Order: sequence, then structure tokens, then C-alpha cells
Amino acid sequence: MTMNKILLCFFIFCSYFKPAFSQDDPAQLRSIYDYALTEGKAYEDLRYLCKEIGPRMTGSENAQKAVEWSVEKMEAYGFDSVWTQPVDVQRWIRGEKEFCATSLGDTLDVLAIGFSKGTSGRITAGVVEFSTLEQLKSAPDGSLEGKIAFVNQPMNPKLIDTFGAYGGCAGARSIGPSIASSKGAIAYVMRSLGLRADDFPHTGVMAHPEGIDSIPAFALSTNSAFKLSQLLEENPNTELQLESHCHYLPDVTSYNVVGQITGSEYPDQYVVTGGHLDSWDVGEGAHDDGTGVIQSMEALRILKELNIRPRHSLRCVFFMNEECGARGATVYAEEAKANGEKHIAAMESDRGGFAPRGFSVDAPEGQIAYLAEWESLFEPFNIHFIRKGYGGVDINPLKAQGTPLIGFVPDPQRYFDVHHTSNDVFENVNQRELELGAASMASILYLIDKHGIPTAIRD
Amino acid sequence: MTMNKILLCFFIFCSYFKPAFSQDDPAQLRSIYDYALTEGKAYEDLRYLCKEIGPRMTGSENAQKAVEWSVEKMEAYGFDSVWTQPVDVQRWIRGEKEFCATSLGDTLDVLAIGFSKGTSGRITAGVVEFSTLEQLKSAPDGSLEGKIAFVNQPMNPKLIDTFGAYGGCAGARSIGPSIASSKGAIAYVMRSLGLRADDFPHTGVMAHPEGIDSIPAFALSTNSAFKLSQLLEENPNTELQLESHCHYLPDVTSYNVVGQITGSEYPDQYVVTGGHLDSWDVGEGAHDDGTGVIQSMEALRILKELNIRPRHSLRCVFFMNEECGARGATVYAEEAKANGEKHIAAMESDRGGFAPRGFSVDAPEGQIAYLAEWESLFEPFNIHFIRKGYGGVDINPLKAQGTPLIGFVPDPQRYFDVHHTSNDVFENVNQRELELGAASMASILYLIDKHGIPTAIRD
Repeated sequence: MTMNKILLCFFIFCSYFKPAFSQDDPAQLRSIYDYALTEGKAYEDLRYLCKEIGPRMTGSENAQKAVEWSVEKMEAYGFDSVWTQPVDVQRWIRGEKEFCATSLGDTLDVLAIGFSKGTSGRITAGVVEFSTLEQLKSAPDGSLEGKIAFVNQPMNPKLIDTFGAYGGCAGARSIGPSIASSKGAIAYVMRSLGLRADDFPHTGVMAHPEGIDSIPAFALSTNSAFKLSQLLEENPNTELQLESHCHYLPDVTSYNVVGQITGSEYPDQYVVTGGHLDSWDVGEGAHDDGTGVIQSMEALRILKELNIRPRHSLRCVFFMNEECGARGATVYAEEAKANGEKHIAAMESDRGGFAPRGFSVDAPEGQIAYLAEWESLFEPFNIHFIRKGYGGVDINPLKAQGTPLIGFVPDPQRYFDVHHTSNDVFENVNQRELELGAASMASILYLIDKHGIPTAIRD
Repeated sequence: MTMNKILLCFFIFCSYFKPAFSQDDPAQLRSIYDYALTEGKAYEDLRYLCKEIGPRMTGSENAQKAVEWSVEKMEAYGFDSVWTQPVDVQRWIRGEKEFCATSLGDTLDVLAIGFSKGTSGRITAGVVEFSTLEQLKSAPDGSLEGKIAFVNQPMNPKLIDTFGAYGGCAGARSIGPSIASSKGAIAYVMRSLGLRADDFPHTGVMAHPEGIDSIPAFALSTNSAFKLSQLLEENPNTELQLESHCHYLPDVTSYNVVGQITGSEYPDQYVVTGGHLDSWDVGEGAHDDGTGVIQSMEALRILKELNIRPRHSLRCVFFMNEECGARGATVYAEEAKANGEKHIAAMESDRGGFAPRGFSVDAPEGQIAYLAEWESLFEPFNIHFIRKGYGGVDINPLKAQGTPLIGFVPDPQRYFDVHHTSNDVFENVNQRELELGAASMASILYLIDKHGIPTAIRD
């Protein structure tokens, strides 16, 4: 390459990457953060959702109460339109508290895995331990006949991104039970998907592949899994007693809740932010995902209260059923398609209400580079990246419609201390962290609305 | 500027900013983090310090126990030398639980401010409220005769860096009581230096300027300050009853604890990392500053266990008396000077054991720019800045000896929920956040030791 060519590249580089924002953006972002931190409603709204309504298991009465409250709140905040979208959902009931003890009399801390079958009385059987799901997969057919399979796979503590560690183990919960069943096991227990050594088991959803008998399935707290493993090492004949009372009720109709501030220039183009309104039945669904829905609503409310009239229509969507199959996500995307709605961006907050760290973008490289130009605007707020990454479960179906997806990324270290446990309560949410998240989301919505995302930039 | 000159600048720019690290540094940092997250001792050591020893008020028996335990631990970890440095310290005793109630019978949550005087029985008097310390300063001389002064100044919630908000209000605690006394007040109460609305008062130190009579001084919880302000608005004649039992015992000799791994090439050049071993008498001194001392010791232990023999001598210093005048800091720096020790860098962790965000550097611009070149090495660990900023109270006296100071900067949002309160307990420390901090500190120690900090680079 000649000097002149290098020089040319340098100048093309510089001009191509000129900031895609305007002079008054820093002040506007500052006003958004100021407002969120002094006039915020997110913390009180989250308190109500967690403490006055409580856990919001798909199909439950609480979930219905939450739907009604969400509609009222969005209307009270003066959004231009508020509506619901019917979502047909299953109804799984945990029933009476589960029981788990060893033949030596040690009681273990346990939760039935969501959508697992009850035991119909007490099961007592020997246990076969596997240190990984892969090891279970390799067990010979029929080798678990009459046994309880135990997958004792820890999340990898070396991964700085705890969601990566979760992803690496989540199969133990989702497909572990059916694999165990296919090899003859009569029940399944697993180490909870948490990083901490504690006494709080983590529930979550499991799959039911066709043609495989469903068996009762349980998650042990990390301490209980450690204990069971020790006992099995001392005596491989240690038996486990298991009892659960899970069952189904008939399907019901539940709802997504959508609130909209209608755009002044492009009312038929949409920028969406959302989270999921449903939660597990233990705890209060505070970080998962009370914070996400409340932050989404708060982001729109902040822009409205600051008299920022958007050019495009802004929506917050409270998705239903994320924990149990994400049917609400499918309904929203289908309806958007059927109505020919053009979504220019969709954002999701479903990684907890912790201190904001950045945004991950699932879009063509050119669009990611365009959005990354805004990084410097967020630096004063201690947010340091806008980069390639996952969007979110509930916005994912919009990808097929060409919508760039944005995941709000808070600090990931504490999430798996509370995720799907009785610890996921309001008290474990910090007000400032929650508010900073809402402000961050409002800020990027503001920037997208103002500057757009060029569709021409593709990889 | 001609094209050629632009081109020249471009190349000078590129070559000047070539990374000041070597090819194997990323792998070495990865091994440090892996070790900290899988073989870490920080969490268990912190548990011992908080739960088996407890709060470590300057001059207390617990502080002495902590000194002895620290020596034992550093020796057990095989550091090359471990020693103590005598520090003469005051001994202030809170005494029996304080009492605060309004004339209407409302009990308020209160803590005596550290080094304040006891009430000698119960004080009952009218209250004059000031919304800021500045307002108190403007009160006419003698205008508070026989009254209780009440400074109800909230920390500024708009500041993303909560330490800035703290700094903006800390005068209300340190000099507020003496200003009130100089205007005739018989006692002083203030809104606690916390951002959250809660029932936990925050203690801390106050100054005793010569020639001004000392008066009893108290911090109300933020909720109690709000309540008192409301009552005063309803009825300005509302009186307050105050009682405290603070007193002094004779001065005692306490100690800094120093552990050293001796350098192989430059044994008489030192890189120091530290925190303070003393704490307030409420809570357990977990985040302030149990995490800081434990992370400092752990950083050295990690490097030792990974068989990284340092070129320079590495020291961890557990400073004594930071909360009550930082006499240990003075002793350490004086001794370093007297011994002609060359400290090539000093780091401090005293902002809590939260998720690491970066490092702030108090040094000439050239050295800051040199260190900032390492930012990219920390990005895989979700750490995004090495920039100009404060070092720390305990390393600050080394600045006069030309030592570059480095402050370890964790996320600041939760610190002032626990700072100087009964909430500053082990349970509020997250293991991974603590370990990531220790790994980050070990990593930058490793880089400084390996690559040095050119003293020629000055601004």
C-alpha cells in the first residue's frame, strides 16, 4: 500500500466514523438521568408490583392482577394508547411444598423444576450421579432403570459474564430430565443454576420432548447438591426420598400489555422497549423481570415528562409467559407482522436491575458500528460499551422482520444469586441501580428516535 | 498543515501510543482472574474478619485482635516478611445506646458522631433547621443560644459518582458541630450521609477545632431527618430530647500490619497495595474497609501462588486509624522516607468490595497516559477505565515522595447504603465482586512490577 493510499484510508476512516449525534445530545441525556434520579417512579412502581401483587406465575391470578395494574399505570401516566394482546398460556401449579431427604435423614433444599410432574406420593430410590449433562447423555440405555439421576454440574465461575456460565449449564435443567427418563430414570435431581454456595434452590422451565415419558424433576440448592454428592461418595447406596405435588390446571387466556406514545413524524414506525411481566412462583420476580418491565414503562414516562415528543411511536411492551415458553413474544411479533408495523428497533431489559454497564446489539455489523458511535455519550454515566451481542428472548421474534435488537446490559455478577429463587425480592433491588437503568434505556430510545438507525448500513 | 505533516503526526501518534505491555500479559491476567475465582481465599478471610473478630474501632480490643490475626494470616500465606508499625491512637467509646425523641414522643433513629461528646444526662431543647451547611455558616453569632442545630442537607442524587455527592456534604459531619457550637448551639443533629431513604443512621468522624467548645453531635437516619423536618414544619416549637454516653479512654499503641514479597531484581523498590484495618464500631467494617485489606492480601497471595516472582518488592499494608485521623498512613510514609525506600507505585482499595469498574490515578499526566495504555488488557474483565483521579486517604502521604497513587474503583452505587452503619456487614458483600476486585488489583500490581512506571514521564 502506498503512503497516499494509507492516507486516503485514514481520512475515509475518520469521516465515516464522525459522531452520529448532535451537540445538544449530552445535555439532553443529562436531563434524562437527572430526572430519573430525582423524580423517578420506578422504585415505587416496582415495590407495588413485588409487594402488593407479588409473584406472577404465567396463568395465575397474580399475573392477571399485574396485567390490570399495568394497564391502569400506563393510562395514569398518560401514554397515548394502552392495550392488551391475548396470549393463551398453560397453567402449572407447584402445589404443596416439595420434600427431599436422604435415607440417612438429611433434609435437602429443593424446588420442583417448572412444568415437571408430581411424584404421586413419595419416591424412594438409589441415585446415580453425573458431573455433567454430557456424562448423563453418555450413560447406556436402560442403565438408570428404577434410579434417580443426579446431574451435579456447577456453573463455570471463571466466566466474567455469568450469563455465559448459565448458558453452559442450562441444558441440565431444560433437557436433563427427558434424557434421564429416556435411560430409565424414575426421577431427576440437579444442582441449581447458581454460582453461590447457598441454601436456595433455583427453579426454571424444562422441555417435554414428544415420545419421552415425563418424570418428576427437582433442583437442589448448591449446598444440598454438594452434600448429596458427599454422601454418595461415602456410600454409593445412599437413597433419596422425593415428593412433589405439581400439576396442571386448564389453559387460560392471559395478556401482553402495550403502552404507546405516538410519534409526531413517523407514527407508523416503532421503537419498542420491553421486559416480561410474568415471573416464577417463588420470590417476587423482582430482578426477573419486574425491573425490566418497570424500567421500560419508566423510560417512556421520563421522555413524556421531559416534554420530548418523539418522531417515531415509542412503545413499552410487558410480555407475558417468557418463563414458560415466551408465547407473548410470538404473539407480539405476529401481530406486528400482520399489521405491517415497521419496528426500527427493539430493546429488552431482562438481566436484572443492576448497575448499567452497556448495551449489546443483535443487528448487521454496520448498524452495530453506527450505534457504537454513541458510546461516548454514555461515558459520563459510567456506561462503557455498545457492542455486538444478544438482544433478548421476548424481542427475538422481531429479528425475522429485520428489526435491530438491543439488550440492556447491567452488571452480571449478582443476578444468579437471586434468579428463579425465593431471594428474588424487592429488597434485593437497589433504587439507584434501577433508576440508572431506566435512564440509560430512556437515553438510547431518545437517540434512536432522534437520529434513526439507517437501514442501508448492512454487513 | 500540509498533507505530509498530517501524515507525519498520524504516524508519530501511532508509534507513541504503542501498547506498553507484552504478548503474554493477556494470558497472565486471565490466569490471575481464573485463580481468584476458583481458588480464592478472600471471601473466607473476610468472613473471619467480620464474623469472628467483628468491628475494629481504632484502639479497641477487636482492632488489636485483627492486628494479630493479620500478622498470622500473612505469615501463613508465606510472605517473605511480615511486621507491624506502632501507631499511637485515641480511644473513643460510644457507650450505652444513644436516645433521640421529639417532645411529641416520636423516637428517632440516631447515632452519635464519632469523637463527639456525651450529653451528661438528657438534653431537651428547641431545634433550628438548616437545609445546608452553608446556611448554618450564615446564621448570626449567638443566634443558636440554647438550641439544637439541625443540618438537613441531602447528598446530591444526580451525581453518578456517589463519592462526589458524599464529598459535597461531608462538611456537615466534620465541621458542622463546631460551627453550630460557635454560634451558641448546645447540641447538633444532622441528616445522615446516605442516599437511600432508610432507618439506619451513619456515623463518622468530626473535627475539634481549637478554641471552640465541643458539643454533643448526632446523625439521624435519612427517614428520621425527614420526619423531624416535617414535625418542625408543622410546629416550629417542637423540641428534641437527646442523650449519649460517649467518652474517651487513654490513648493506646496500635499497629499497621505490613506483609512483603521481596523483589528478585529491585528488592529495595516497592509497589504497595493497602486498605485500612480499623473500622467504625457499628456493623462489621465489611465494605469499609474489610474488603480493601483482604483484597490487598489476596492480591499478593494470588501472585505468590501462581509462582510469579516479582522484580520489585510487593507489599500489602493494613493501615490503622483511617477512620479517626489516618495516623497509620502518616507513620507508614514517615518510615518509608526515613528508610529511603523508593515506592514506585501505591494502590488503595477503600471504596467497597463491589464490581470493579476501573482505576483512578493521582500522578503526573504522562504517567497516567502510560498506565491508561493497559485499559485494553482489562476489557475482557469488564473493567473500562484507567484515568486521572483520586488515590486514597492512606496512600496519600506517599505523594510527597513522588509516588504515583492508584485508587481501585468499584461500582459506587451501593456504598453509601452501608457506609458507617450497622448494615456494613459480611452478608452485604458479594463473593464474586470481592474476588474480581482482588484479581483486578493483583493484575495491575503484576503489570506495574513487570513493566515499571517510567519516572521520566512527567507533565
